[in-house]
Amino acid sequence: MLILLTNDDGIHAPGIAAMWKELTKLGEVHVVAPETVQSATGHGITIETPLLTRKVGRDDGYHGVAVDGRPADCVKLAVSQILPKAPDLVVSGVNAGANVGINVVYSGTVAAAIEAAFLGLPSVATSLYLRSDVKTSYEWAAELSRRTIESLLEKGLKPGQVASINVPAVGFGVEPAGVRYVRQCTRAWIDTYERRTTPRGDRDYFWNKSVFSLGETEDDTDVAALREGYVTVTPLMFDLTDHLLLKKWGE
Amino acid sequence: MLILLTNDDGIHAPGIAAMWKELTKLGEVHVVAPETVQSATGHGITIETPLLTRKVGRDDGYHGVAVDGRPADCVKLAVSQILPKAPDLVVSGVNAGANVGINVVYSGTVAAAIEAAFLGLPSVATSLYLRSDVKTSYEWAAELSRRTIESLLEKGLKPGQVASINVPAVGFGVEPAGVRYVRQCTRAWIDTYERRTTPRGDRDYFWNKSVFSLGETEDDTDVAALREGYVTVTPLMFDLTDHLLLKKWGE
Repeated sequence: MLILLTNDDGIHAPGIAAMWKELTKLGEVHVVAPETVQSATGHGITIETPLLTRKVGRDDGYHGVAVDGRPADCVKLAVSQILPKAPDLVVSGVNAGANVGINVVYSGTVAAAIEAAFLGLPSVATSLYLRSDVKTSYEWAAELSRRTIESLLEKGLKPGQVASINVPAVGFGVEPAGVRYVRQCTRAWIDTYERRTTPRGDRDYFWNKSVFSLGETEDDTDVAALREGYVTVTPLMFDLTDHLLLKKWGE
Repeated sequence: MLILLTNDDGIHAPGIAAMWKELTKLGEVHVVAPETVQSATGHGITIETPLLTRKVGRDDGYHGVAVDGRPADCVKLAVSQILPKAPDLVVSGVNAGANVGINVVYSGTVAAAIEAAFLGLPSVATSLYLRSDVKTSYEWAAELSRRTIESLLEKGLKPGQVASINVPAVGFGVEPAGVRYVRQCTRAWIDTYERRTTPRGDRDYFWNKSVFSLGETEDDTDVAALREGYVTVTPLMFDLTDHLLLKKWGE
């Protein structure tokens, strides 16, 4: 099995290196990932400027191609130019931080997986919930992700399908409560900002001071299941049409 | 009616100034838009760096606040800090270029409207299809957009609902074929790249050389209706869950 591995934290992030090691148990893994951190870049792509690439390698065997672009660029470029043939599976992650609820829309990790689905490939995004009070491990998160990917492959992850996995905040070797298949929570996340003024007094600037937390939500969502210690799996799609509203407006 | 107007081409783009003029017929318009071009930035947001702002004004009365961030940042910041109260409507555009099919996912114009919907506001994204063989007009596109917005407000555009409008490539004063309520085309768009090597020979770089066109598609999509000269309206949503697949996987 030929696997394309990417992420949005950059090719040097610990999460992608841990995932690389786990995925080598499933097949031949090609890493094509952003050269720098691309968190919260959403589904941006690069059109007007060229994508510079660089080969990256480490003593432990981890190696790949760094691209100075967005996560979605990495998938496009890898499939079009870098890989020897179309991959059988695309994996994005392990991301540093959960991608649940509304955050799914901002996530470069998820955008890479959705881009792969556009191209007709089966794809998985995987993310680790980070909490200041729990010592988590990317190695363990990668193992739990690989196990979940194997069960999805058994269920039949088809071309163009996207699964978003989130791993709960558990220590190394601690088994999660289980796996839950859940929908994306759509509860609003209201950002707060602090206004400051430049020393010259000529411009205002604003710092985002929101702190991410898993708030209240219905029981059947990704947010609730992750908070309760489950590995969550949410199938995603890229048809943004609100078909119910379309029917109503079209009448 | 208090209207927040933003875009992804930047506050100095002709499309947003034309839309501002049209929207002043409907209410009090506040412009909060990116300082620089933010095309194809998708739903990126700014978390780690501050958002610098600057007041912008022109002799013809067009004025607003420029933000050195993403389209979605502009909506968050405007609602949280800049506007005197919550807007009754958020409009994003007129964008230079169609946002139909898979492009909807890459579009900063659409991301701004979806961000507004997160915040529980009714919102509209509007985009003009540009063709090299037709002399289009942002003034005319803005008028057609404003008329379509008025008809949507009559239908009842509710808090949290998003409509994406696309205006066909027609000359000033030329009436489109009509208005069609259509779904997003999900046909894949395969990008092509050209590989080059730096003069020093140390790095490869790749130029995206895809040319946007409205290709073949089913009749009931945004792509088909826009190509046939209709103004298109597509209701969008931000729940990315594939509910059918969720049911299947969860069994």
